[in-house]
Amino acid sequence: MDVGAVIAGVLAGDRRAIARAISMVEDGGPDLEVLSAGIYASTGRASTIGLTGAPGVGKSTLATELVRAERDAGRTVAVLAIDPTSPYTGGALLGDRVRMQEHATDPGVFIRSMATRGHLGGMALAAPEAVRVLDAAAYDEVVVETVGVGQAEVEVAAATDTAVVVLAPGMGDAVQMAKAGILEIADVFVVNKADRDGAGEVVRELRQMLHLGAARPWEPPILQTSAIGHEGIAELRSAILDHRTFLKDSGTLRSKRRARLLREVESLAAARFRVRAALALTADGALADDVASRRVDPYRAAAILAGETAAAG
Amino acid sequence: MDVGAVIAGVLAGDRRAIARAISMVEDGGPDLEVLSAGIYASTGRASTIGLTGAPGVGKSTLATELVRAERDAGRTVAVLAIDPTSPYTGGALLGDRVRMQEHATDPGVFIRSMATRGHLGGMALAAPEAVRVLDAAAYDEVVVETVGVGQAEVEVAAATDTAVVVLAPGMGDAVQMAKAGILEIADVFVVNKADRDGAGEVVRELRQMLHLGAARPWEPPILQTSAIGHEGIAELRSAILDHRTFLKDSGTLRSKRRARLLREVESLAAARFRVRAALALTADGALADDVASRRVDPYRAAAILAGETAAAG
Repeated sequence: MDVGAVIAGVLAGDRRAIARAISMVEDGGPDLEVLSAGIYASTGRASTIGLTGAPGVGKSTLATELVRAERDAGRTVAVLAIDPTSPYTGGALLGDRVRMQEHATDPGVFIRSMATRGHLGGMALAAPEAVRVLDAAAYDEVVVETVGVGQAEVEVAAATDTAVVVLAPGMGDAVQMAKAGILEIADVFVVNKADRDGAGEVVRELRQMLHLGAARPWEPPILQTSAIGHEGIAELRSAILDHRTFLKDSGTLRSKRRARLLREVESLAAARFRVRAALALTADGALADDVASRRVDPYRAAAILAGETAAAG
Repeated sequence: MDVGAVIAGVLAGDRRAIARAISMVEDGGPDLEVLSAGIYASTGRASTIGLTGAPGVGKSTLATELVRAERDAGRTVAVLAIDPTSPYTGGALLGDRVRMQEHATDPGVFIRSMATRGHLGGMALAAPEAVRVLDAAAYDEVVVETVGVGQAEVEVAAATDTAVVVLAPGMGDAVQMAKAGILEIADVFVVNKADRDGAGEVVRELRQMLHLGAARPWEPPILQTSAIGHEGIAELRSAILDHRTFLKDSGTLRSKRRARLLREVESLAAARFRVRAALALTADGALADDVASRRVDPYRAAAILAGETAAAG
């Protein structure tokens, strides 16, 4: 399937073409630019939801429940699970995708794990393009699920319209989450596994942490769910819809999306430049040797590569 | 204290100067380049250890124990705890640093939490420069502790000589850790809180995951510790020393450090370019509008900013 056929297929909602397009995003090869140009005009319609939280809090089960709720409401949904590349497996681990098998035969649902094999910008830059593929394929909702909980994952979740931060009792307290920078980006908090001991305490801790901050135009609600027991899902969906209404009514949606796109463009431009810098460093063995032998420090070497400083010392 | 005095102070091991220098790294201001140039020739002597793992596995307690073991062996130690910026607190949360108070009056120990307020490259680029400050100040060991567990944290840990990955029973299983890309970078595994139920299972799971990979010249050992009970710390220190001996004897240390420095230079060059791209995008309102209104896709806009494509469509 050439890239022209992939673009046409994505726009027609063809599942094989969508899968192929996301592989192109993962690989970061030359076709990616053609793909991006071909689908861009057809994007901007989907609503996007980020799901982030520490490993083991039950994000995948929650995603499955959210998918069911959206389908019951007659909306189509795509789920993109961002797994970093594993050299052991040569790609994304698909283990817990299996739990989503109930949706496997539903044409209104598309589920995909995604690694960042060759994309220059890592997951922070691969994810938005993959989301645009699903957006162009006309899914109403795109749910982006991250696996870890760190700076890059927080960036990915923050690059959606509504960031849902998932916690669970016994999985690290709210202070630990605050330190990972995750509380600040949350539009909605979910304390999952609410049937377990300690759920109430997590909610109380979260409330305390949130009260430390200044008042904001949107106060993120704290919900309790038990994804395995199917509890609290309707409330979660309704909180997400409330946030969406807030974004639209306040004019934030438009400005947030614009700012996000421009930051992405800057990062993509920097990633292109990084490739050129690496080539230049390979070509100029003397500069690399000067750095390795501690004659030229990394900041000065970077300025030389960026053409901002003359090489002569 | 001007930057010249800071450099002189760092090289003399003055604690106030070291603290000031790390603040300069956090801020990413113009003094940083002068600092970097001034200390670089005096770096490369310290051994570096990365400590990473999910929030709540007990990394800080383990770091405290490691510090004590190194001090007992007559070596000086610096601990750098990387906390992403929190808009709520305006900096790093120092809560669990308090646990390290037993070392507060020891001149052979330096402990510092670090946020990445203004540094362009985020923690992945701020951390190596802060490590060089501590290296230039002649600490024998520098321990870098990350807070979250995600792609950026994995990068930070991988940028040390010996990456120690910490797990604990009930904090997400080994499959979850593998998905976060964390197993691949480990030189030493620690299952902390080994006195708790499920520690043996975590060890077994880890062993299974590791057996999936190809044989490697260094097989990461799996240790069990109980940092609160002070158990297993001598074994951990000895595993770290074994790895260090392996790195030196195999010639890997030199090549690993060189490759790490060159990647850092490339990233710093790209970060400089990103600033120029952002300025260009602000100056060229038409291009920004074209992206926002979906006439020019992000990849094409990036190529235009990078000077690789003409702007005319």
